[in-house]
Amino acid sequence: MAASSPNCCSVLITGCSRGLGLGLIKGLAEASNSPELLIATCRQPEAAQELQELSKKYNNIRILQLDIVSEESRQKLVKAVTALVGAQGLNCLINNAGENISASLDDVTAEHMLHIYETNTVAQLMVTKAFLPLLKQAAQQNSGMGWHRAVIVNMSSISGSIQLVPDDKLFLQVYPYRISKTALNMLTKCLAEDLKVDGILCISLHPGWLQTDMGGNQAPMQVEDSVPSIVSLIARLREEDSGCFLDWKGEIVPW
Amino acid sequence: MAASSPNCCSVLITGCSRGLGLGLIKGLAEASNSPELLIATCRQPEAAQELQELSKKYNNIRILQLDIVSEESRQKLVKAVTALVGAQGLNCLINNAGENISASLDDVTAEHMLHIYETNTVAQLMVTKAFLPLLKQAAQQNSGMGWHRAVIVNMSSISGSIQLVPDDKLFLQVYPYRISKTALNMLTKCLAEDLKVDGILCISLHPGWLQTDMGGNQAPMQVEDSVPSIVSLIARLREEDSGCFLDWKGEIVPW
Repeated sequence: MAASSPNCCSVLITGCSRGLGLGLIKGLAEASNSPELLIATCRQPEAAQELQELSKKYNNIRILQLDIVSEESRQKLVKAVTALVGAQGLNCLINNAGENISASLDDVTAEHMLHIYETNTVAQLMVTKAFLPLLKQAAQQNSGMGWHRAVIVNMSSISGSIQLVPDDKLFLQVYPYRISKTALNMLTKCLAEDLKVDGILCISLHPGWLQTDMGGNQAPMQVEDSVPSIVSLIARLREEDSGCFLDWKGEIVPW
Repeated sequence: MAASSPNCCSVLITGCSRGLGLGLIKGLAEASNSPELLIATCRQPEAAQELQELSKKYNNIRILQLDIVSEESRQKLVKAVTALVGAQGLNCLINNAGENISASLDDVTAEHMLHIYETNTVAQLMVTKAFLPLLKQAAQQNSGMGWHRAVIVNMSSISGSIQLVPDDKLFLQVYPYRISKTALNMLTKCLAEDLKVDGILCISLHPGWLQTDMGGNQAPMQVEDSVPSIVSLIARLREEDSGCFLDWKGEIVPW
């Protein structure tokens, strides 16, 4: 990333017990321009051993409990984060937590669809709403647009690209997931438009198809292949990126 | 529509008690190439006075009860439709029923999001799945692609276009609705891809912004302005239209 980029004080990432979330916390902790505060949330902090070990190694990591679909849990987290960030607010929210269910057209049920939408789309909206006061607070203290001010990153997937459906037949096995990611992309675009006036930037990010519990072992990339690019990308986001769907290399993914 | 277009035997439209659904049943009943059978569904047939009157005037209209979000209701309808269409199957399913809630970013709740997704996206998937055997049966008896064979029309909205969000700020007041329509567009694309092999065509349709209970009285068009174009469009759908998002004039709407 450009050495001249102004730095980010605080980042919050959801879903950090494993996979990409864990990788991003590690990548940000190791970065030369590591933020002052890295808030890693997960459903069961006491069971997140790797994350716990990471937080012993880097003293800017704080682990907090969050069940993204619970309003009570979200409000409790906002209180704890407010106490941590103080008047500086929160600079960067990465809505990374999500879930997948294998369900083809034959298999898919209404319950699958609603559950995955709640976890992959609605929760991202509600977590964002919960942190808007802190994001706005951070935005008021800076100008321009970028992670030095206020950024929301929604972790999406290329399988949510409507245009690319004919190229990605493999993903026809995951109706609830891919439809939830398309919906998340629309949420990104609406948030970007609504929050422009507040100086808050919002993007959807395809992190690459990664070998994680979610991505499965057919995936062509490791978390470690993607994280440095993502960390660099987030640090150099600018106004013109807001409302875009980018991949880990910063290339535009079609809607 | 082209006089040479082969005709469609049976059409089923959901949400026909009022607004666009009622208008489409009327438009199809009046068309020179009116299908042999027009199945109009609504939640409360006994309360749908205008539809009842229409069915007295045109003897190809049958009114059947359907609550699109109820599996029991869907299965009951499939049985009734199977009895009506016999071995011919069903040629055309128009997923028209839907709902709107006014909810800006400030107002929107998780409950709004889930309710509208269930009504505008999940129900369309489940109604389609319920009628797939009858659509496939119809498709087996013809070649080519179009409403003479098997067609699914998902009633979408330009407010579901991700690309057009910056042009349509008015619609930022309806987060749950517009996100559900984007999700519906993804469903259309997946269905088109999955069902191509069966000869079933699937599109998303923006009917115009209409003065209905849903569209409100700010809308620039009447149902009557849009219906003749939609009837003509559906009758001339061809293979290359499958998986597209078209407006009532047949023009492509960007994803």
